Amino acid sequence: MKKMNLGNNVFMYPMPVTLLGTKMGKKANFMALGWLTRVNANPPLLAAGINSSHLTNGLIRENKTFSINFPSADLIKKVDYCGLVSGRTKDKSKLFNVQYGELDTAPLIEECPLSMECRVFDIYEMATNDLFIGEIIASYCDERYLTDGKPDIAKINPLLLTMPDNHY
Amino acid sequence: MKKMNLGNNVFMYPMPVTLLGTKMGKKANFMALGWLTRVNANPPLLAAGINSSHLTNGLIRENKTFSINFPSADLIKKVDYCGLVSGRTKDKSKLFNVQYGELDTAPLIEECPLSMECRVFDIYEMATNDLFIGEIIASYCDERYLTDGKPDIAKINPLLLTMPDNHY
Repeated sequence: MKKMNLGNNVFMYPMPVTLLGTKMGKKANFMALGWLTRVNANPPLLAAGINSSHLTNGLIRENKTFSINFPSADLIKKVDYCGLVSGRTKDKSKLFNVQYGELDTAPLIEECPLSMECRVFDIYEMATNDLFIGEIIASYCDERYLTDGKPDIAKINPLLLTMPDNHY
Repeated sequence: MKKMNLGNNVFMYPMPVTLLGTKMGKKANFMALGWLTRVNANPPLLAAGINSSHLTNGLIRENKTFSINFPSADLIKKVDYCGLVSGRTKDKSKLFNVQYGELDTAPLIEECPLSMECRVFDIYEMATNDLFIGEIIASYCDERYLTDGKPDIAKINPLLLTMPDNHY
């Protein structure tokens, strides 16, 4: 077996594909996010690595809240659009039906099987990206994606992403 | 569509399944890790959320290095064993063929299609878990898992995990 050294810029296999929601003024905005993981059991914390140049980076800092939405595979075109186009140039607020839970500034996507509301717990700053550590405040799932009261990944049929080829 | 509030302890869908390697004295040790993501583009940083009570937590602090190995689905039994059994009670050093790259204390699993060597960049401490932020020093992949010189997820056939049901 021959192991090749691929250098240091290799990605995780696979990454989840999520839509991170924020508020820009009165409108909702969404970015595609793959750099996401749970990081602490109790309190329930997750962390999202977001490039400092992204509009969303500033919006989270402003609102101190955000949402994480898990799209199913049939939403691939809209997810891809959210990943390619910045809210600075296009209004993405009408792409999805939006609802709110406990937080006023964490827009939840109705079309996504599973959504979480998060409050910023801390921000860990790095060279090109910032790690937004969020406390999960509540999670919402459509009844039809549950099995025994828990989200069922087979029913959710989530998107996966690989980089650097950006293949779903 | 009826959205149910599932509370705040909901997990990511899906999570990768990886084996984190450390050295315990002269022996290699491995834990199963699902809480992992890239967090910074340049330098290439990843982050792993590890419970403070785990043996691995102390071993990473001691060595300041670790490896991340991506097993293919056929390694599921050994991966599960690594996730269930602590290196405090069982010697896991003989489970896999181990090799080393640039770092002396980041054991790479030969059977895994893709492995990364990491040096600790920083440790972010939380209530129940610590986030080990590692700089990727090098990545190794068997030739047969590459397409156009890049890891091919279809060839790697990685394991995925959902929690809290712990279903692969």
